[in-house]
Amino acid sequence: MQQSDTDFAPLGSYLRARLADQGFMAHMGAEVDELSPGVCVMAVNRRPELLQQNGFFHGGVTAFLVDNATTVAAATVRGQGVLTAEFKLNLLAPATGTRLICRARVVKPGRQVSVVAADVFSVTEGVEKHTATALASIAMLGDKLMEKEPPGRLSA
Amino acid sequence: MQQSDTDFAPLGSYLRARLADQGFMAHMGAEVDELSPGVCVMAVNRRPELLQQNGFFHGGVTAFLVDNATTVAAATVRGQGVLTAEFKLNLLAPATGTRLICRARVVKPGRQVSVVAADVFSVTEGVEKHTATALASIAMLGDKLMEKEPPGRLSA
Amino acid sequence: MQQSDTDFAPLGSYLRARLADQGFMAHMGAEVDELSPGVCVMAVNRRPELLQQNGFFHGGVTAFLVDNATTVAAATVRGQGVLTAEFKLNLLAPATGTRLICRARVVKPGRQVSVVAADVFSVTEGVEKHTATALASIAMLGDKLMEKEPPGRLSA
Amino acid sequence: MQQSDTDFAPLGSYLRARLADQGFMAHMGAEVDELSPGVCVMAVNRRPELLQQNGFFHGGVTAFLVDNATTVAAATVRGQGVLTAEFKLNLLAPATGTRLICRARVVKPGRQVSVVAADVFSVTEGVEKHTATALASIAMLGDKLMEKEPPGRLSA
Repeated sequence: MQQSDTDFAPLGSYLRARLADQGFMAHMGAEVDELSPGVCVMAVNRRPELLQQNGFFHGGVTAFLVDNATTVAAATVRGQGVLTAEFKLNLLAPATGTRLICRARVVKPGRQVSVVAADVFSVTEGVEKHTATALASIAMLGDKLMEKEPPGRLSA
Repeated sequence: MQQSDTDFAPLGSYLRARLADQGFMAHMGAEVDELSPGVCVMAVNRRPELLQQNGFFHGGVTAFLVDNATTVAAATVRGQGVLTAEFKLNLLAPATGTRLICRARVVKPGRQVSVVAADVFSVTEGVEKHTATALASIAMLGDKLMEKEPPGRLSA
Repeated sequence: MQQSDTDFAPLGSYLRARLADQGFMAHMGAEVDELSPGVCVMAVNRRPELLQQNGFFHGGVTAFLVDNATTVAAATVRGQGVLTAEFKLNLLAPATGTRLICRARVVKPGRQVSVVAADVFSVTEGVEKHTATALASIAMLGDKLMEKEPPGRLSA
Repeated sequence: MQQSDTDFAPLGSYLRARLADQGFMAHMGAEVDELSPGVCVMAVNRRPELLQQNGFFHGGVTAFLVDNATTVAAATVRGQGVLTAEFKLNLLAPATGTRLICRARVVKPGRQVSVVAADVFSVTEGVEKHTATALASIAMLGDKLMEKEPPGRLSA
């Protein structure tokens, strides 16, 4: 992933714009904390509507962050269209705290399938706790994202 | 799973009440379509805030339904406290349509871990399309749900 | 998967021949019980060298059957080259008995990735016990298997 | 995992002895390269009977190493009985080379379920290539391994 920041800037902007088109991103109040070649960091702040019955972030919030961040991370590598094929998520600890951060990194970029790992952390007074770990397989499509955008691309 | 409907009624009501305590259930607009021993069916209707940039249900919505429905399905069997250990989700087709339904069924109830399978379908004019399939491992806790509810139980 | 048996015969023979080239198939003593469009059933008989310390079939034997049977099942659909991208395996019960059978079926054939489910059963005096369930993602390659066989194809 | 090497020595010897009881370990020619609290490294050398049709280590060999090493790694932490609940394995590159090494490390020890990650590397003339990555959930049983050994314990 030897792109320079300058090379990456247009793709980065493009991917952020596509994410801004996701009604669900806004509904979750998700933010992109970092986007660079092979990396996507996404987070949400604590809000009552994101919690389960015991006051922890809902597992579905963790799953959303993992799904979205791993897919976008895969798209950063070559700017190809991507489709989430699958992911596996292990919940490690209750997602307490005021912010939930998902860090996704491409483990192995592929022509057909890219493998992306993600770890989720909950933040309490600046201290991070590891709450989940995940492994995703992202299908890499033939077309380039920035040339044309047929339906189904970047389909987190 | 030989409980009669009568035996199951109190546990069913209890589980529905716990789900009603989830801020995230309401935020997603999720409904419990069926709850019986070993089975949980959960669904959401199409709303712009549940979609990704191409107008399909977001993968995170599918993941939320799978996470929640598999955990609740495991809790129906013996009324034990449950914790989602992990799940793996394969996305099969774009989640188009007006409603997204997740059907979870216990494959193997266990003392330590129960294995639950789930399939997700999108509905267009009454026709269902298979959009995702998943496999979850739910940790079974020692305590009974209806006797006491310490924090962390039924922690989807 | 509407191929007739006649259409499938050459591909079936080709796939069986490729499996016969696997040193590991012979080392495991694995047999192909069934091969048809979208389906592969593979089995091993009980032998001391396939067991773990308690006399059950080793989890690695179950994993081998799942890996091989899901990959071959994906190859039956269009005769494309295939590569195992990933699989997830839940062990449900000790693999006792005299024979271990893995039944793999294509859930969703894809252009890029095919999704294949597998269930494993151990047989004791003709009675089957469900010992494992799995979900696999198989990368579908562009080339046709029977035209040319570059390295890396059907790489279970 | 604050045990000293001295504290760990008896458990380490016990676990190595149990592995020596696995007929399948010998059949695969697997060796334990390292065993310490939270860590198990297992490897096999290249032999024709461990390969697939293109001369790479068979995916089933990788899966066996992951299954066994993750289970044993979980058992090192508290010396409890363990049962593999599930694992998910992504194959990243063809397993070429003369030796295949699996490094498993406990990510999160649990009372009910421990989460263990594993990475597999193939070695060619001393150079390692990352060929697979995996995530496993191991059920932790109530009894202590070294006190009594009921059937089904350490059941990789």
